Amino acid sequence: MDSRMMTELLGEFIGTMILVLLGDGVVAGNVLKKTKSEGTGWLLITFGWGLAVTIAVFASGYLSPAHLNPAVTLGMAIAGETPWSAVVPYILSQIAGGIAGAILVWLHYKPHFNETKDSELILAVFATGPAIRDTISNLISEIIGTMILVFGLLAFGRATFADSLNPIVVGMLIVSIGMSLGGTTGYAINPARDLGPRIAHQILPISNKGDSDWGYAWIPFIGPLIGGALAAVLYLLIP
Amino acid sequence: MDSRMMTELLGEFIGTMILVLLGDGVVAGNVLKKTKSEGTGWLLITFGWGLAVTIAVFASGYLSPAHLNPAVTLGMAIAGETPWSAVVPYILSQIAGGIAGAILVWLHYKPHFNETKDSELILAVFATGPAIRDTISNLISEIIGTMILVFGLLAFGRATFADSLNPIVVGMLIVSIGMSLGGTTGYAINPARDLGPRIAHQILPISNKGDSDWGYAWIPFIGPLIGGALAAVLYLLIP
Amino acid sequence: MDSRMMTELLGEFIGTMILVLLGDGVVAGNVLKKTKSEGTGWLLITFGWGLAVTIAVFASGYLSPAHLNPAVTLGMAIAGETPWSAVVPYILSQIAGGIAGAILVWLHYKPHFNETKDSELILAVFATGPAIRDTISNLISEIIGTMILVFGLLAFGRATFADSLNPIVVGMLIVSIGMSLGGTTGYAINPARDLGPRIAHQILPISNKGDSDWGYAWIPFIGPLIGGALAAVLYLLIP
Amino acid sequence: MDSRMMTELLGEFIGTMILVLLGDGVVAGNVLKKTKSEGTGWLLITFGWGLAVTIAVFASGYLSPAHLNPAVTLGMAIAGETPWSAVVPYILSQIAGGIAGAILVWLHYKPHFNETKDSELILAVFATGPAIRDTISNLISEIIGTMILVFGLLAFGRATFADSLNPIVVGMLIVSIGMSLGGTTGYAINPARDLGPRIAHQILPISNKGDSDWGYAWIPFIGPLIGGALAAVLYLLIP
Repeated sequence: MDSRMMTELLGEFIGTMILVLLGDGVVAGNVLKKTKSEGTGWLLITFGWGLAVTIAVFASGYLSPAHLNPAVTLGMAIAGETPWSAVVPYILSQIAGGIAGAILVWLHYKPHFNETKDSELILAVFATGPAIRDTISNLISEIIGTMILVFGLLAFGRATFADSLNPIVVGMLIVSIGMSLGGTTGYAINPARDLGPRIAHQILPISNKGDSDWGYAWIPFIGPLIGGALAAVLYLLIP
Repeated sequence: MDSRMMTELLGEFIGTMILVLLGDGVVAGNVLKKTKSEGTGWLLITFGWGLAVTIAVFASGYLSPAHLNPAVTLGMAIAGETPWSAVVPYILSQIAGGIAGAILVWLHYKPHFNETKDSELILAVFATGPAIRDTISNLISEIIGTMILVFGLLAFGRATFADSLNPIVVGMLIVSIGMSLGGTTGYAINPARDLGPRIAHQILPISNKGDSDWGYAWIPFIGPLIGGALAAVLYLLIP
Repeated sequence: MDSRMMTELLGEFIGTMILVLLGDGVVAGNVLKKTKSEGTGWLLITFGWGLAVTIAVFASGYLSPAHLNPAVTLGMAIAGETPWSAVVPYILSQIAGGIAGAILVWLHYKPHFNETKDSELILAVFATGPAIRDTISNLISEIIGTMILVFGLLAFGRATFADSLNPIVVGMLIVSIGMSLGGTTGYAINPARDLGPRIAHQILPISNKGDSDWGYAWIPFIGPLIGGALAAVLYLLIP
Repeated sequence: MDSRMMTELLGEFIGTMILVLLGDGVVAGNVLKKTKSEGTGWLLITFGWGLAVTIAVFASGYLSPAHLNPAVTLGMAIAGETPWSAVVPYILSQIAGGIAGAILVWLHYKPHFNETKDSELILAVFATGPAIRDTISNLISEIIGTMILVFGLLAFGRATFADSLNPIVVGMLIVSIGMSLGGTTGYAINPARDLGPRIAHQILPISNKGDSDWGYAWIPFIGPLIGGALAAVLYLLIP
């Protein structure tokens, strides 16, 4: 592996780590007991995740393309924007970053994890779960949400942005998806954001934790990949 | 029809579809039962619709002027910014996009539609309705809201924007109108945003749906067209 | 009066009219009965007023400097940015715009004014009032808030902004002042925003209205003028 | 001391004064009794502090680098962006600015301080305190929060920003840290923001005030300095 690729993988790792630290952090602040932000609600979640993406892109964009999301990497490869040889290494770096970020969230909120007895709330900090469990509908939700994400990113590629405006607009896209489409499955729309922290949930010695709901885990992994691929195909079909 | 026009109509269709998917989606997330965002309130609605416009303009702006709104198309034609020959085709594409977007919202939130028994809430996902039913006042509200929208857009045309800043400011205009003027009729300010989804509501097999309130439907169609036309005339009168 | 000055006065009139329509509109949406936005709270007020300023500046900035605020006009004159001969005509145009904007708010929300029986809420749509009535403290609050506004605007004048970014930052300044300093007197920080609508309240035939609280009216008029003047002097003193 | 350094110290003083006036102001508006913004919650706090930073940077950035934060100054010195000789004078100016800003908050909200009987709420206006008191965890929280802040600022230094976009993104970084990581200790992430107002709390004649919790004061002073230093070291280690 050459040095440029090493730097890119480091960028994807650091960026996804910061993304998940800030993103899962805002969930932790909302659901864990006795935090100052407990129970603030969906506006906190959606603005928080959008800002997490903007900041993570800025913090890693000088090292890598800052996909920070396997569905984005896949979509970009299909659209011819990213070499196929980078896809698997990027995705592995992103998942590793997701694990690292989730461990930092646990470290940051440790006294509040100890105060929280509800194992579902604890899992919610790490991994997404559906508001109503329904395999087909949940899969469709993740596909639609990720299609908007990846189609949006590809369309942004057709625009010219004032310097550094792009990561802000990407964050706005995330806020929009969260507000408009997130209420069903909690909008993973990113396999690394769900799988990485779910692995961390599995291995960390968290008091009162329950199981890691592996039965659902394939939906926020496969759904976004399908959505990202469909968006890229649709984008290529449009003249 | 030439190929350039075909691409523009495709752009208006896709853009309005995304606009309504994200815009009606935020209403669905707010009012349907058991969503994670249920009951978040007016801030969710107003920020969500503003972001929906910004994202929809970015997602379709490389194909068409991204009016995504018959009142804007009419106003731009009066102001001489859009050829009159484009007006009817644009409007039909926008309404078709509105129907398609609303169908996607239904698909996305299907389990939550099934859980929702209140037919007024179900209609609210698709079409606007007045807080207090009063024909003259409701019409005036839609006229004033759309005048601000179209006058604002025409004034933006006099400014120079850093690359890609314009769609963000357009989204801010929508948030502003929603926050300041939306509380009366739910600020359709866009005939395609109301009529398209209302048609979808009529034809979709939604459990527990009631009637589509066609008696009110002309107000969010005609009101915005009047408002858009008046704003363009006013703009032309100012030296 | 020359034609350039006429255009500028028209700009100040239209801009302040839109400012007050959107600004008093967000208060109306928050406090009047049966609106869809009723009771949303301080975030609605502060984001709504900030966006009102941004939009009003864009909508009138191609005609005039878009002060839309006598305290800004006075501060700019002291700082040498605006000719003294423009001060009184600008201020009169701004107050007239404030009256016109408030009449539009009444027209827009008419059914909701009729449903609202509390005369204090009705007055709150038009004019500011203190949370705790205390002449000296209320005056100090208006002075401090307006000092931040005018000092901020003068400092912005030292920066270079990407095209059209300036009105967004001005709106952020208004949101910031509202969130941080507005909770005491409701942050008039603009004599035209308070006096204009208060005159409208006096003359409009609003059901259930009470008196226009003229005993307090001098504070949101004089306080901002003092604050604007002090900010300009302070700015000139800094090397 | 030369005149350039004098101007810079004045800039750090004024900027931190405005930062704390607006930042502690938003806390005052949220927790003191009978304000119009009382009890708005964590969204008010986080947006308010983010905007406070953006505005303070604009208001002082024409005079100094606008660190407004000893942890930033230390991190920038380690990263070679600020001369070591400036570190102590900057920090002293920042703390003095913090004291002055807190005095202005007290002046601005005086009637509301008088109405507030809970001494913990009064202290909360000035100084941070942990949601759950735990020395190691609280220190870790401040370190992680400040690492994200300073690493983010250093990464921003690698990007090119459209004119005046940078202070907006810095404000977004503060909002993000507040939303995602602030719920544990109230995110001082700035020794001057905590120590300055805590000194003001100690010396001001506030009715109903309790002690200034000096036993905790070292954590929001040392934690951010450690975090800022670690972020700079990490940044230097990345190729």
